[in-house]
Amino acid sequence: MSIQKPTLPRGTRDFGPEQMVKRNFIFDTIRRTFQKYGFQPLETPTIENLSVLMGKYGEEGDQLLFKVLNSGNFLDGLQPADIDEGYKKLTPKIAEKGLRYDLTVPFARYVVMNRGELTFPFKRYQLQPVWRADRPQKGRYREFYQCDADVVGTTSLICEAEIVAMLHEIFGGLGIGDFTIKINNRKILSGIAEVIGVAGMESALFVAIDKLDKIGKEKVEEELREKGLSEASIKKLQPLFGAPTSNREAFENLKDWLQNSQVGMKGVQELEQVWKYIRTMGIPEKKLQLDITLARGLSYYTGAIFEVKANGVQIGSISGGGRYDNLTAAFGVPNLSGVGISLGVDRIYDVMEELNLFPSDSGTTTRLLFTNFDAQAEEFSLSLLQKARAAGINAELFPESSKLKKQLDYADRKRIPFVVLIGSEEMESGLLTLKNMTTGEQEKLTADQILAKLA
Amino acid sequence: MSIQKPTLPRGTRDFGPEQMVKRNFIFDTIRRTFQKYGFQPLETPTIENLSVLMGKYGEEGDQLLFKVLNSGNFLDGLQPADIDEGYKKLTPKIAEKGLRYDLTVPFARYVVMNRGELTFPFKRYQLQPVWRADRPQKGRYREFYQCDADVVGTTSLICEAEIVAMLHEIFGGLGIGDFTIKINNRKILSGIAEVIGVAGMESALFVAIDKLDKIGKEKVEEELREKGLSEASIKKLQPLFGAPTSNREAFENLKDWLQNSQVGMKGVQELEQVWKYIRTMGIPEKKLQLDITLARGLSYYTGAIFEVKANGVQIGSISGGGRYDNLTAAFGVPNLSGVGISLGVDRIYDVMEELNLFPSDSGTTTRLLFTNFDAQAEEFSLSLLQKARAAGINAELFPESSKLKKQLDYADRKRIPFVVLIGSEEMESGLLTLKNMTTGEQEKLTADQILAKLA
Repeated sequence: MSIQKPTLPRGTRDFGPEQMVKRNFIFDTIRRTFQKYGFQPLETPTIENLSVLMGKYGEEGDQLLFKVLNSGNFLDGLQPADIDEGYKKLTPKIAEKGLRYDLTVPFARYVVMNRGELTFPFKRYQLQPVWRADRPQKGRYREFYQCDADVVGTTSLICEAEIVAMLHEIFGGLGIGDFTIKINNRKILSGIAEVIGVAGMESALFVAIDKLDKIGKEKVEEELREKGLSEASIKKLQPLFGAPTSNREAFENLKDWLQNSQVGMKGVQELEQVWKYIRTMGIPEKKLQLDITLARGLSYYTGAIFEVKANGVQIGSISGGGRYDNLTAAFGVPNLSGVGISLGVDRIYDVMEELNLFPSDSGTTTRLLFTNFDAQAEEFSLSLLQKARAAGINAELFPESSKLKKQLDYADRKRIPFVVLIGSEEMESGLLTLKNMTTGEQEKLTADQILAKLA
Repeated sequence: MSIQKPTLPRGTRDFGPEQMVKRNFIFDTIRRTFQKYGFQPLETPTIENLSVLMGKYGEEGDQLLFKVLNSGNFLDGLQPADIDEGYKKLTPKIAEKGLRYDLTVPFARYVVMNRGELTFPFKRYQLQPVWRADRPQKGRYREFYQCDADVVGTTSLICEAEIVAMLHEIFGGLGIGDFTIKINNRKILSGIAEVIGVAGMESALFVAIDKLDKIGKEKVEEELREKGLSEASIKKLQPLFGAPTSNREAFENLKDWLQNSQVGMKGVQELEQVWKYIRTMGIPEKKLQLDITLARGLSYYTGAIFEVKANGVQIGSISGGGRYDNLTAAFGVPNLSGVGISLGVDRIYDVMEELNLFPSDSGTTTRLLFTNFDAQAEEFSLSLLQKARAAGINAELFPESSKLKKQLDYADRKRIPFVVLIGSEEMESGLLTLKNMTTGEQEKLTADQILAKLA
């Protein structure tokens, strides 16, 4: 076996203990909230058949799928001509499987394969990694987690309101107090296309509008001109760029603008109903913003769309989602309506780091270290150690008789907040020395007092 | 987009809500115990460089690794001759990465790459899936979870004792009351090889002994004969097949048998020390068994080895592990001693299903469903719904006004234990009808009484 310096593939990461504790805090908060709202867990395999994945993410997506080489002799049965045809045609002949690219397509596949057994409306959440052979760059990885919650099998707008409630609960629970939930509706965007006379060009319109935040009004108009919109259409589009001072004003402007578009007015009416539900549920409205410039890239949305922005940090949206009507159509089951939300764990992590929001005590790491100076103290500590654990305290005994400095250093580097020092004096008197590693203070306490203090 | 009937790759599984709730109960119990003993979480990427994985699992293992096709034009730079050389030589030229095969090698890689930053002794746990291109069969999957805990950087036998304590706590927590922890030591096996005069043939001896449970004494002896052991050696091996009635007797027999083997007596002495620690920690000894026929397949063990068997079910070992001295040597860091344990989630799941041990109420699923008969009741329920959630109750409102039967059926199939029925009478009087879905009983209660009852 040759000795080599090991490396990680580009765009992948190890998550060591410190990061994991923080990431688990995020995952646990999200999971607990999803459960509180009646969503049930689902896990799908990492490896999917490429027949399931291909053609669902556009041509670029097909390229970005990681493909898994067939096991055994994958060249078996191939002709030289197969290789001459180039890698794109060769790929499906030597790779039948690929890695999960998102959680949405596997969810749709699961629903289709199990629809006879599922209870509808079916509410599922899914927290799993996905893989994309993208060019790695700052904040963009080839392996990263997605956290999705979806409900399918109902068109009830209560589901949209519940997503808003969940977002409040999740970000509140994480300590991200200052955020904005932007809401729009694809029907409103269709209505806009209709009233400005470009009804067949929705997708060009959505793509350009989606960039408003980044490139500004002039550049958006320029792009629309390039895409063939007339000056008349661009002139009619001007209400889009108005900056209403309240949601009420935004709704009023919109009803005025879209009064002649049936689909547009349907979108407005849907959002008004969502707002009504939110009010009834007692969710504060001040973090909600009707933002008619919100378009979102994905083509499958048909109703409400959402995006969440953490204010005061230069990081893109931390959550997004929307309603769709045809997610399972590619697998032969049309007209199954649903609505879902996806949370970006990596970005949420970055926001929380920047705002220093991670709690200092996660409740999952070691709280108490017993020192180890000699065989006698070791024996004394071992039985106390189990008592501490029985009392629910995460505890450790330093496994070797080492110098005090080394043991305190261990506690310090592992951020263990309390150390019990047990020497011959302590064993004789029964009064143990408890050292608070944060303040440096020491106090003499009985074993029971220590357990009572930390339990 | 063509419509196709979707399928799952062979040997992979979806885990739907019912299975996930049970699996999470297992994962949570394991994770909580690992944390209580001071182990910290680690996650490594699914995709590793094949240079890290190859050569670590034997030739068969190399074949069973799933390889990921290089992105982009993987044929670029290849000559026709490369293809003529066959798939084995071609593979490394078109696939640089592979899927994680176990958690041990990535852990060793992580330790080597981060050893300057880690706090030793380093205690980590890892709960992640692994992939093997094995032939799928009953109970054997191509994608499955491993749950490992290891401590590296100390030779302290306290770690062995702590593993025993953790196993008690995990299986106790899962409700698997009747299990046996078999313990042996590779040094004892080396000692046996020494005293029967086959010191260079340890590995053939271990492999044969490991099958004793399955094939019986005669077949083991036959295999040993085939491998070249003399009749004299096989005669000297007879004490191995003795059935001591207690661990004390087993230790005494062993000390007698191995008295002339230094390594053998070292193994005995190590295990006696482990037993002493276990006694001091107050761990009951009746589930422990010194089993000198326990060998375990993996070649890297050098000290204590463990295996756990659930009694009364026809399922193989549900946990295994041991001490190793050279795990990181392949990556250029020799002499780092450690000890670890691995838990088989799929087998534990099967044991718990067979013994009916999963709790009926997981605490993570929906506990309360509000019915929905019309817009007025819906509005009435929405505010109560948020109150229930604020009180920590996982709750749902049926999102559509449907027939009672459909809504009760939803609760029933989702195993929601309580349903609140709210009609005009209930809204008027403020006395809501709470239906217990298990007993069928109904009672009239105020909203506050319901929340108090379920919180």
